[in-house]
Amino acid sequence: MLEDVIKRKARSAKAASTVLSGTSLQKRNALLKAIAARLASETQAILSANGKDLRLAARTGLSKVLTERLTLDEKRIGQMINGVKDIMALPDAIGRILETVDRPNGLHIEKQSVPLGVVGIIYESRPNVTIDASALCLRSGNAVLLRGGSEAIHTNKALVRIIAMAVKDMNLPSGCVEFIDTTDRKAVLAMIHQDDAIDVIIPRGGGRLISFIRANSTVPVIAHGEGNCHVYVDRSADLPMAEEIVFNAKVQRPSVCNAAEKLLVHETVARAFLPRMAARLRGAGVAIKGDQRARALVAGIVPAGPHDWPKEYLDLVIAIKVVKNVAEAIAHIGRFGSHHSDAIVTRSGKNAARFLREVDSAAVYVNASTRFTDGFEFGLGAEMGISTQKIHARGPMGLAELTTVKYVIRGTGQIRV
Amino acid sequence: MLEDVIKRKARSAKAASTVLSGTSLQKRNALLKAIAARLASETQAILSANGKDLRLAARTGLSKVLTERLTLDEKRIGQMINGVKDIMALPDAIGRILETVDRPNGLHIEKQSVPLGVVGIIYESRPNVTIDASALCLRSGNAVLLRGGSEAIHTNKALVRIIAMAVKDMNLPSGCVEFIDTTDRKAVLAMIHQDDAIDVIIPRGGGRLISFIRANSTVPVIAHGEGNCHVYVDRSADLPMAEEIVFNAKVQRPSVCNAAEKLLVHETVARAFLPRMAARLRGAGVAIKGDQRARALVAGIVPAGPHDWPKEYLDLVIAIKVVKNVAEAIAHIGRFGSHHSDAIVTRSGKNAARFLREVDSAAVYVNASTRFTDGFEFGLGAEMGISTQKIHARGPMGLAELTTVKYVIRGTGQIRV
Repeated sequence: MLEDVIKRKARSAKAASTVLSGTSLQKRNALLKAIAARLASETQAILSANGKDLRLAARTGLSKVLTERLTLDEKRIGQMINGVKDIMALPDAIGRILETVDRPNGLHIEKQSVPLGVVGIIYESRPNVTIDASALCLRSGNAVLLRGGSEAIHTNKALVRIIAMAVKDMNLPSGCVEFIDTTDRKAVLAMIHQDDAIDVIIPRGGGRLISFIRANSTVPVIAHGEGNCHVYVDRSADLPMAEEIVFNAKVQRPSVCNAAEKLLVHETVARAFLPRMAARLRGAGVAIKGDQRARALVAGIVPAGPHDWPKEYLDLVIAIKVVKNVAEAIAHIGRFGSHHSDAIVTRSGKNAARFLREVDSAAVYVNASTRFTDGFEFGLGAEMGISTQKIHARGPMGLAELTTVKYVIRGTGQIRV
Repeated sequence: MLEDVIKRKARSAKAASTVLSGTSLQKRNALLKAIAARLASETQAILSANGKDLRLAARTGLSKVLTERLTLDEKRIGQMINGVKDIMALPDAIGRILETVDRPNGLHIEKQSVPLGVVGIIYESRPNVTIDASALCLRSGNAVLLRGGSEAIHTNKALVRIIAMAVKDMNLPSGCVEFIDTTDRKAVLAMIHQDDAIDVIIPRGGGRLISFIRANSTVPVIAHGEGNCHVYVDRSADLPMAEEIVFNAKVQRPSVCNAAEKLLVHETVARAFLPRMAARLRGAGVAIKGDQRARALVAGIVPAGPHDWPKEYLDLVIAIKVVKNVAEAIAHIGRFGSHHSDAIVTRSGKNAARFLREVDSAAVYVNASTRFTDGFEFGLGAEMGISTQKIHARGPMGLAELTTVKYVIRGTGQIRV
């Protein structure tokens, strides 16, 4: 039965996690090195498996955006290899002594960073997640249970086979990386109920996937949710700067979660700003929606409906709303945003401070593009993704966020009085 | 409708949380001072409300342990007041700059500590949680939504009224502390579905409550679960030390989560250790259960069944198992433990190191009583309770664990290339 298979894989990962948590940094780096080497030597096998997925995608009419995400080539495999090597260079996240307390009664207390244990990752079309996420988990001493998208199944199987070979090369238990190789959706449900073996579930994907997992998981969840990101152009904004920021946030890479989906404009500058901004966006192929006031200022804007404001387009589409002031902008973002990345363009220190304080998102910007929300752009290094929740990890989730703590207490017979 | 009431309270707390997150440390301390003052001036009103609950408890036959937890007197109210004052003295947990990154492109990135927002607390009989938890949440800039046990309803109402008066004294919105004053169990279900208003649910209670909340909550959960704590007496243990530790861990305060519930003994020392240990425990009124090997060594031990090993007794009961070695002890704790606090008594550095590494609990002890797992005993100060999960908070959960982070990025027009 499917459920038994999932349970067995989760338990196998749990057993491996105990071994992994005791390995040296040297050993874990050697494992990553072996993965990088196998990726290089098996590039053709990966591309051949990817070809199968792409042919299937063409037959089933997978969308252009998803097909683009699915596609591998030698350059992208090279990027995976470099990604693994970059992770090898990061400081060790486990075995650190975070705090030491010596108590008057002689107890010596250490707060240590330790691996989470077993990390379950549920993701969609990008096959590079298979490598990136496994490398981050293994480097931080965690075993991993992967569940990728059905459209990438052949590519993912090839990548997991490569990791398995590297794990075997290092004489580590095969449970270090387990992969759910069925595309049956019931596997997800079974996986999120293995709370005695899986320590955390990290879903990466759209709102429906995240909501389903949140509502049904008995394992704690760290959601890497949608990015319905906003740029608000304030009354005192430097308008040429605002134009550059909005254009970059929308157009530079529309398929990613830190791209802007909404433009809010202060009513006082809307007339001066919007016609020019709209022309520039249209020049790059952006479809523009808007509220009544935006449509009154620019011809040809499609009405934005109630379903638009909370929506993540991940495409060359933007919705524009004219607002009365910074308070209305903040309230709109609070109501419809996804707590990912939001920006204000302003010359007002007061409005900037208020926006930074009251917008409840992982990353809040003044006078910069939302596109910078990314572990590398923040100077933090490789990441699992961007957490849009507040618990455990918020924003770029790297090695440190793949650990928990353990209190280790050494005594000489102390009892409590 | 009940659900609407809960939704309204959660939204009211959300709105208040925005105000609270912007308050100064001075203001939050003044609020705590006002709460402490009101607790002192309203002591008789609290005791009178508590009397109602106690009379009801007597009529409904509430257990002795739960009645003891429910009972307030002037001394316990004095402890609450001191608890609030202690929290005032702690360093501020919010507004801290945890990391600063200046990027080559001129972006200035700050990782700031900010409040979680709205903390939902679901707890059972202890009314002091109403004050302790509220004080910790308010001090860290969080609004709080409380759901206490039905057996403490009058006491909790009186305590919440006191907090409300203090909140009003400080001109803060009443939503800072919301209380669900119905004892209808459906209120819990409604509460754990307010994921657009509540940022985290902290359940404190027994395994059934925690499992129910984990399985049904769409709000992230930080569980303060059971403590099925173990003491393992190793082959090389100093036996008189082991006896003191086991006795303390079991008897000193059996109703709390860090009390020992299980005793594992290495087979080589079982004959020398168990008869004496059992006599001492029995002398303190402890009922002893055990496996076959323990029962062969001490007359009158009741057989321990499969339901005993995972059970938290919270009472003068202990179950004993004789094990072959440290590996069997670790495996038993891994299988049946609650990941709270577990101890080894040993003279072997090797076995101690292995136990510390492989036992996957929030607190792991060598040669000390499990009873020390407590914010004050660890020198960390007041806490919400002991988290038995790995995500976000593990072990004593204090002010720092009531915060999350926000990335604040200041630019001068930066766009991503």
